[in-house]
Amino acid sequence: MTTITQNNTADVVVVGGGMAGLAGAMAMRENGATVTLLERAAEFGEVGAGLQMAPNATRLLRRWGLLDKVLERGVAPKQIVFRDAITGTALLRQDLQGEFEKRYGAPYIVIHRSDLHSILLEACRESGVTLLNNVNVERVETTDSGARVHTSDGTTYDAGLVLGADGLKSKLREKVTPASDQPINSAYVAYRGVSTIDEAIEGTEVDNVTVWFGPNCHLVTYPLRAGELFNTVAVFKSETFEAGEPEFGGVDELHAAYANCVPQVQESLKNLWQGIRWPMFDREPIDNWIDGRTLLIGDAAHPMLQYLAQGACQALEDAAVLQDLSVGTVFTDGGVKASEWDAVAERFVAERSPRTARVQRTARVWGESWHVGGLPQLLRNMLFQAAEGNTFRYTDWVYADNAESAPASA
Amino acid sequence: MTTITQNNTADVVVVGGGMAGLAGAMAMRENGATVTLLERAAEFGEVGAGLQMAPNATRLLRRWGLLDKVLERGVAPKQIVFRDAITGTALLRQDLQGEFEKRYGAPYIVIHRSDLHSILLEACRESGVTLLNNVNVERVETTDSGARVHTSDGTTYDAGLVLGADGLKSKLREKVTPASDQPINSAYVAYRGVSTIDEAIEGTEVDNVTVWFGPNCHLVTYPLRAGELFNTVAVFKSETFEAGEPEFGGVDELHAAYANCVPQVQESLKNLWQGIRWPMFDREPIDNWIDGRTLLIGDAAHPMLQYLAQGACQALEDAAVLQDLSVGTVFTDGGVKASEWDAVAERFVAERSPRTARVQRTARVWGESWHVGGLPQLLRNMLFQAAEGNTFRYTDWVYADNAESAPASA
Repeated sequence: MTTITQNNTADVVVVGGGMAGLAGAMAMRENGATVTLLERAAEFGEVGAGLQMAPNATRLLRRWGLLDKVLERGVAPKQIVFRDAITGTALLRQDLQGEFEKRYGAPYIVIHRSDLHSILLEACRESGVTLLNNVNVERVETTDSGARVHTSDGTTYDAGLVLGADGLKSKLREKVTPASDQPINSAYVAYRGVSTIDEAIEGTEVDNVTVWFGPNCHLVTYPLRAGELFNTVAVFKSETFEAGEPEFGGVDELHAAYANCVPQVQESLKNLWQGIRWPMFDREPIDNWIDGRTLLIGDAAHPMLQYLAQGACQALEDAAVLQDLSVGTVFTDGGVKASEWDAVAERFVAERSPRTARVQRTARVWGESWHVGGLPQLLRNMLFQAAEGNTFRYTDWVYADNAESAPASA
Repeated sequence: MTTITQNNTADVVVVGGGMAGLAGAMAMRENGATVTLLERAAEFGEVGAGLQMAPNATRLLRRWGLLDKVLERGVAPKQIVFRDAITGTALLRQDLQGEFEKRYGAPYIVIHRSDLHSILLEACRESGVTLLNNVNVERVETTDSGARVHTSDGTTYDAGLVLGADGLKSKLREKVTPASDQPINSAYVAYRGVSTIDEAIEGTEVDNVTVWFGPNCHLVTYPLRAGELFNTVAVFKSETFEAGEPEFGGVDELHAAYANCVPQVQESLKNLWQGIRWPMFDREPIDNWIDGRTLLIGDAAHPMLQYLAQGACQALEDAAVLQDLSVGTVFTDGGVKASEWDAVAERFVAERSPRTARVQRTARVWGESWHVGGLPQLLRNMLFQAAEGNTFRYTDWVYADNAESAPASA
């Protein structure tokens, strides 16, 4: 039996067409690389509802000339409001415009995942990234000149660098870390839903991001798509998961989890899709994302819980930092020096991994603080109440342009 | 057998010669009452080390003309410093002079219990309170004209009002509350010690109050007696108490409780008296302190955990409020109208009990927040760190002159 093998070559091959892969492909293409992006699914797209783009990400969108499009399809909310879901009390209102935007140099934006995804996809297409669907990557082989991607239909792709952007359950990560490195189920399950803005429950601040804290649960709402749509996310600790049941986190459990919350929160659950739920995973931070000429980025490198809303933001940072580190080193006026990738990848990991590890770890603690009861709930509430007008101390490290390891915004 | 019964009469009889009893006696005497104070012990005095007088108490000391004496024998510390006993980090420095003193209209003072006690005792003596020792009160009988105190030697004392200032284990409280009302053991045990100032452990801020927070333990230090003496208090959760052992909270357990603390804290334990320990009790707040013409005050009415350092302060407030409510009602230009005591006592309880209940409840939570570990410890530390320069929001309710139910300072 003879297999006809097709061979393809690019400066950079990206495995995975999510946010990290698209942003990475686009950034490499901007540096002049020929880029092929391989996506397993039959179509490019995103499953999900809204996501939040903090200024550390929107500064990069501006740098790439995408901010106006994102603003057009998203919403720049006025405030983020944190509330106790049991008492209803507003604990903290953080303005997201005015001084906040001035301090961080870019707006805070909420946008539908599919809108952001299609903006990035469009940017890749327009810049000439080769985008391939239905490609199932089986493994990456290190070669003399770089790496060779083997796919299930026998096609191979040669590149100076392979970007492993294959997400939480990354196959390419398996060669980087020991088998003990696995996704960690946080026991929390998310339900999401996008409704029209008029379906928002009475009392909802439709111009703002609202986060309701309850013991073992929270709820987030915000507007989408120029204010026409409305996003609702409910996240709760699944007792059936903790009891070891394989089918954990069902709809009954969802409703039970919010039974002690104020009516507005309970009523908001009706805007959730009931047919799909997202168990929330992350992994332990690791300090190596390199195997030969494969470099992990995005969730493949640093999957995080969603509490800081930094998943997509950190993926964009990855792309920007790799772009900056490879220009003038790999991509020079004299051509592409693929041999420089080893040093660039090392620098990339050295620069990025402490920051993303901090985001991963902080997201866990931050989330834990949302879900407390009893005395910790009181302390948390007092802490939020004390932060009014003084929250920059908690956000500078991740949002600020001059924060340690934040990528250049221009 | 014939018992010779001696009968004595006063406008007010005070049962108990602790801080509450002395302050109450003095305040009634200032209103013109004839006052007899009955103390069970053979001598007047206080067992203990230092105590803290917040401005809500020192304003009253000034009103009674005692502030200069208290300042002379005590110390006005510069700051109160809260530290994490595990990391050593200073979480918060609250200035106790300057703006603080100006805002609250009086100094924050630390003083030896026996010094404050003797100042109050002297004030009672000078003003003509009849002070009797070795008197064991057995019961109080309600009479047509007021109340009659029966003592174990058969002597009785008649008064328009009996002030029950017989402390945590109050006998007079038994008639006010059901049998289920008992002192509640917090499982925490205090060791105290007074040393000379030069025995303070190296690194100690001898001009300041320092509170070290550890999981299940804390340590407090401050100067006493014009800076010549130094006070150390260690309070820890007794595992042997929780295990049901009758002889709980021994010295071995003390040292074990601080084993993970920074060296300065561990070394400070050597300044504690080893021969005496104080299990820490309070009771549930109650909203009736009246039985006939017996009115409970001080710890008999509202025993509290020590975390807010308000035990003596609230006892002084009791005295001041009763003084204010009874002048012009009971004590008039036309003489003493004992029949007015019923209304005055009702008003007293209505005014005082919400405030002291809040202090009792807040002291519990406040103390609990000192002793946390894990995430709550992180939240607590962040809360304290966030409070720098903005702590009045946490102290106004109890320290401020215009706080709800705070007694008049002049």
